[in-house]
Amino acid sequence: MPRKPTIRQSEIVARSRLFRIEALELEFANGTVTHYERLAGSGRGAVLIVPVTEQGEVLLVREYAAGVHRYELGLPKGRIEGEEPLLEAANREIMEEVGFAANRLEELTSLTLAPGYLGHTTHVVIARDLYPRREPGDEPEELEVVPWPLADIGELAARPDVTEARTIAALYLTRDRLAAEEG
Amino acid sequence: MPRKPTIRQSEIVARSRLFRIEALELEFANGTVTHYERLAGSGRGAVLIVPVTEQGEVLLVREYAAGVHRYELGLPKGRIEGEEPLLEAANREIMEEVGFAANRLEELTSLTLAPGYLGHTTHVVIARDLYPRREPGDEPEELEVVPWPLADIGELAARPDVTEARTIAALYLTRDRLAAEEG
Repeated sequence: MPRKPTIRQSEIVARSRLFRIEALELEFANGTVTHYERLAGSGRGAVLIVPVTEQGEVLLVREYAAGVHRYELGLPKGRIEGEEPLLEAANREIMEEVGFAANRLEELTSLTLAPGYLGHTTHVVIARDLYPRREPGDEPEELEVVPWPLADIGELAARPDVTEARTIAALYLTRDRLAAEEG
Repeated sequence: MPRKPTIRQSEIVARSRLFRIEALELEFANGTVTHYERLAGSGRGAVLIVPVTEQGEVLLVREYAAGVHRYELGLPKGRIEGEEPLLEAANREIMEEVGFAANRLEELTSLTLAPGYLGHTTHVVIARDLYPRREPGDEPEELEVVPWPLADIGELAARPDVTEARTIAALYLTRDRLAAEEG
């Protein structure tokens, strides 16, 4: 493993309500000095939930995605708030977005989006033993819930409204995990 | 499919050398008005390449990731430059980062990172029929190339230095595609 570059200087060069952009001057182990920009992660990161039903379906939501200005079908997700424990955040998000809570929640892994320039981390949580329970969220409109067989990820990923790398990676990893549990 | 929200106002509220942050006022179909921020995508997006050898291995690179300030092991990638055709960009990136070129290149799919607030698109390209050829790139140091059996994605994704959702999603999708080709 190479020695990490040294951060010789860092400065917030732009900020908005939600984002902070940081400029870095880095010196690599070979002496090369370069300038990078990165977006700082927000707080404790995000949680992405894979709610799995007893029928082996995952519960997806159809949600407006402002970054690409269209509706995207994907796993429910949201920010972890303040001191909220990770699994509580996961359960809150599925109550708000999907209308279910889970008796069984476990963190599967953590994912990054584009670690070269984003500091964001997303914790992937599998939610099982679901029961109906809706809590009000901050969504501007109710989200349509779409059950999808976990066995058919390939067909799902081929849809033009299913593009989010986090959702696709989390579904495959969940499928592998459940298969391993079953032996 | 719900009707898309109307963008009532948009304004660039912060910008840096690489990033532009846009504030949006949106009106949803139900009349709710909300304010969003999003990061505009850069140019024509990025390309992520899955270089597959005749032995069924993928060629990964170990690269410093400024967003998380550590080395990450993942698929080679880079920005598409100017008018550069997609597959040429893919071939250029593997010549620069991996030291191989490909006789056979095909776009597999396009991925987003966090479509709720990022406009970025990443085109996934499978590269096959590889031959040694290195071109100079703009990397600050030479990247270590790590061959990994495509059959062992689960083990790879369990490593602490393999976190990028794009890499994990692209590997699973490639594995499915190659399995489908073989029948």
